[in-house]
Amino acid sequence: MDDPRTVAEAGEAAVLAVLRGDPPPVDDPVGNGDDAAVLGPSAATVVSTDMLVEGTHFRLDLTTWRDVGRRAVAQNVSDVLAMGADCTRVVVAVALPGDTPVGRVAELAGGIHAEAARSGAVVVGGDLTSAGAVVVCVTAMGPLPDGARPLRIDGAAPGDRIALTGVPGRSAAGLALLLAGHADGPLQRVHRVPVTPVGSGTAARLAGASALTDVSDGLLRDLSGLARASGVAADLVTGDLPGDPRLAEAARLLGAEDPEALVREWVLDGGEDQGLLAAFPEGVDVPTEFAVIGRFRAGEPGEVTVDGAPCTPGGWDSARSPGYR
Amino acid sequence: MDDPRTVAEAGEAAVLAVLRGDPPPVDDPVGNGDDAAVLGPSAATVVSTDMLVEGTHFRLDLTTWRDVGRRAVAQNVSDVLAMGADCTRVVVAVALPGDTPVGRVAELAGGIHAEAARSGAVVVGGDLTSAGAVVVCVTAMGPLPDGARPLRIDGAAPGDRIALTGVPGRSAAGLALLLAGHADGPLQRVHRVPVTPVGSGTAARLAGASALTDVSDGLLRDLSGLARASGVAADLVTGDLPGDPRLAEAARLLGAEDPEALVREWVLDGGEDQGLLAAFPEGVDVPTEFAVIGRFRAGEPGEVTVDGAPCTPGGWDSARSPGYR
Repeated sequence: MDDPRTVAEAGEAAVLAVLRGDPPPVDDPVGNGDDAAVLGPSAATVVSTDMLVEGTHFRLDLTTWRDVGRRAVAQNVSDVLAMGADCTRVVVAVALPGDTPVGRVAELAGGIHAEAARSGAVVVGGDLTSAGAVVVCVTAMGPLPDGARPLRIDGAAPGDRIALTGVPGRSAAGLALLLAGHADGPLQRVHRVPVTPVGSGTAARLAGASALTDVSDGLLRDLSGLARASGVAADLVTGDLPGDPRLAEAARLLGAEDPEALVREWVLDGGEDQGLLAAFPEGVDVPTEFAVIGRFRAGEPGEVTVDGAPCTPGGWDSARSPGYR
Repeated sequence: MDDPRTVAEAGEAAVLAVLRGDPPPVDDPVGNGDDAAVLGPSAATVVSTDMLVEGTHFRLDLTTWRDVGRRAVAQNVSDVLAMGADCTRVVVAVALPGDTPVGRVAELAGGIHAEAARSGAVVVGGDLTSAGAVVVCVTAMGPLPDGARPLRIDGAAPGDRIALTGVPGRSAAGLALLLAGHADGPLQRVHRVPVTPVGSGTAARLAGASALTDVSDGLLRDLSGLARASGVAADLVTGDLPGDPRLAEAARLLGAEDPEALVREWVLDGGEDQGLLAAFPEGVDVPTEFAVIGRFRAGEPGEVTVDGAPCTPGGWDSARSPGYR
């Protein structure tokens, strides 16, 4: 039954109970409900934190509370995968306006727990506060086995192959469709909740990748970032990029003057697809979920060419990007 | 030199560099600047997350950017101490309006790093995003040594002594003074940055405490919470509470009709002093920084008496409390 009360009417204990939900049992020394969670032994622990802000990252008229929760978890899980680990635990801090109906909090919590479960993770703690806008801050954690080398962003070497999971551009196309009033569809769903490549971070590590990151700010921008950190340049081959015919369809539906250019922009500069971008040395078997899309070479650190032409990355700047406003 | 640009003008990379500062080197497998941090081996890891929101927890006309950073870290460190551990690592997600001057971000970062250092912790990662209000979400972590038992909130038994670090009521009195226009003073400083009892969580654990929590929502409220979780009642003796003559002075300065009643309210229901509240079994040596302020007994779980009289806790409700608004 939908709780008819608002968050302010129900009070902290009741709302925390809704947020906490009924998570699966864990064998941690201390789970949810104490001052802090206590995780069990680990040789190394990957930790990432990320904040999702209403108005900047989502609008509640274009998405659902459930998808906000799923996306908040997904984008953090993605960062843990990008170190070559699996995500096993998350803690979630939530800020809500006092007039939020408790039923919406239940949907948010449902999304948080569902996406955690999809990723193989459990929510072990959180925080609740009031604010003028909805804010969800997730911290995701995952263990690395004893002796495992984390996949850093700065390990690519000249000659390594550039490889990517997933199809870039879908999230950006989905956002464009949403903003134009097309409320639903497969691209819109990718924008609302990116599909994190669960297991692919570990697969890349076991296969012998030399570097790994996730694509959250745009393919070119994140590729350039990985190349810069590694002190190499990168040559991208667009013909080798996994494509989706729905991108061109979306560009036409939106009445783009140059649909091909718009698709290219989505693919190269659109962020938040949360694919994994890896460097694999020559001679290493690239896991099947990765498509080889170019090669790193000696050169100006961070320089990126696309089909041989130098290219300046666009993409998302978190200090600058106005989001939906 | 003060950077004259705004956050939006400077862009993500520049602002992240300011936030990251120049943290001390750590021997973690991966530090700041990658997709995620990687912490070294640990038998058990305490994890706590907490969000500080402008308007709800602070107002920038009543505090400083530096103190916002210090307080965000302090309140999270406090939760790690409350499990009987020391805090060694924090990650920090920050949301800022685009028109925030970069100089203010530097002050915020200075406070974050200073408080982390005071606690014996290092900032190993973070996130930056834009928002309409300032939000700081800290996740604090600390290891527990092999075989150490975390101090849960539900371990108090009838007969255990109630013990507290610090002086309750200072933060609430400081807030009242600030709201009445008294811009500075020792109580106001406690409100801006609570003094976390670094080392006292571990001291309580080594001494043999049976339960531990921190006082963030009010002494009675948190005492009742610990008692309820433990299935016991609690009898508080106000005459044994550590006092501060400045509380009575503040009540008079504010022109309270009944200054004694106001002080009592601050002491019993004022939150955010971040003292540690412990249960110590009979026969255990209570560490010197803890004052014994009463005793747990068999009874209605969560029931609290003050000097023998039943008492209903007031205090802070995160879903309901309007903060400064």
